[in-house]
Amino acid sequence: MPLVRISLPEGKPSSYRAAIGQSIHQAMVETINVPADDRFQIFSEHSPEELVCDPTYLGIERSKEAIVIQITLNAGRTLDQKRALYRRIAERLAENPGIRPQDVLVNLVEVGKENWSFGNGLASYAKE
Amino acid sequence: MPLVRISLPEGKPSSYRAAIGQSIHQAMVETINVPADDRFQIFSEHSPEELVCDPTYLGIERSKEAIVIQITLNAGRTLDQKRALYRRIAERLAENPGIRPQDVLVNLVEVGKENWSFGNGLASYAKE
Amino acid sequence: MPLVRISLPEGKPSSYRAAIGQSIHQAMVETINVPADDRFQIFSEHSPEELVCDPTYLGIERSKEAIVIQITLNAGRTLDQKRALYRRIAERLAENPGIRPQDVLVNLVEVGKENWSFGNGLASYAKE
Repeated sequence: MPLVRISLPEGKPSSYRAAIGQSIHQAMVETINVPADDRFQIFSEHSPEELVCDPTYLGIERSKEAIVIQITLNAGRTLDQKRALYRRIAERLAENPGIRPQDVLVNLVEVGKENWSFGNGLASYAKE
Repeated sequence: MPLVRISLPEGKPSSYRAAIGQSIHQAMVETINVPADDRFQIFSEHSPEELVCDPTYLGIERSKEAIVIQITLNAGRTLDQKRALYRRIAERLAENPGIRPQDVLVNLVEVGKENWSFGNGLASYAKE
Repeated sequence: MPLVRISLPEGKPSSYRAAIGQSIHQAMVETINVPADDRFQIFSEHSPEELVCDPTYLGIERSKEAIVIQITLNAGRTLDQKRALYRRIAERLAENPGIRPQDVLVNLVEVGKENWSFGNGLASYAKE
């Protein structure tokens, strides 16, 4: 159910993007009970001028490698779950493809269960 | 008022994208009381590696032609209206340009009426 | 904290995009208490067919230069603040790079404070 938009610097090899996708998905599976096959991700590449991240906001030193991850998901995760998710995404991305934790930005957009159709024109999660 | 982001596979002819836009818009007009001239759509094309949709999640067989439709709209539609919207979008896209219903993913993001400016620097729907 | 997605017509010079980013950010600093260094913007360029804005919805005459600004931000701004934001964005963009106020569309998506990580795997705004 999460729909994940990943904005990254342009010019990376295909393996780099694949590693990002895999690491983010694993982190969601591990921390917020996302099923292993519930993977929906949209990547977009941007020139430095198109992907603007302040280099020092909140005292965190960001580089040109910063990526922005916007996750639309069902409402209801606890603060502890969200904390675990942010931490695990940063850890996984540090491992593979090797992105500095300072360069990982995450934003969650929460929606209702009735707000998804995963195909066949049906409200996939709505109760009868 | 709906703002519709449509992520589709790259390399389609212009007529394919136009048909998608028209079909989605007609479905919204027919099912959730969107005015005919209230059409705002942003398309982005993606390589297969950039548009990742699990091929079997929830038992629905998705192909390389899957598209993701994210609609930001005012809160307040009933579940029945949402169901009708999902169904009609899938039906319309099956007719034109001929997308399999399994390949149509929809997500709704609901916002308040005060959250829109459609020009001239005004809050278009806010009450005085 | 605001994450700003800016969809604009393709083919503009770099200075045009930079002016848009600067003007929007200044408007947010001036009207809704965004810190000066809290700037996170993602630009995407689109062909006319990819960026569809109705030319007369609500009686506002839009041109091919219309841009769509979607701002994800913390919930809690008052209607007066939102009104001031819309007005100031339109004024600033009219000054630089010179976009007609009719061509400035803004949408706000509000989220909770716990929904942001600005790096280091931490929930940047969550209370302990």
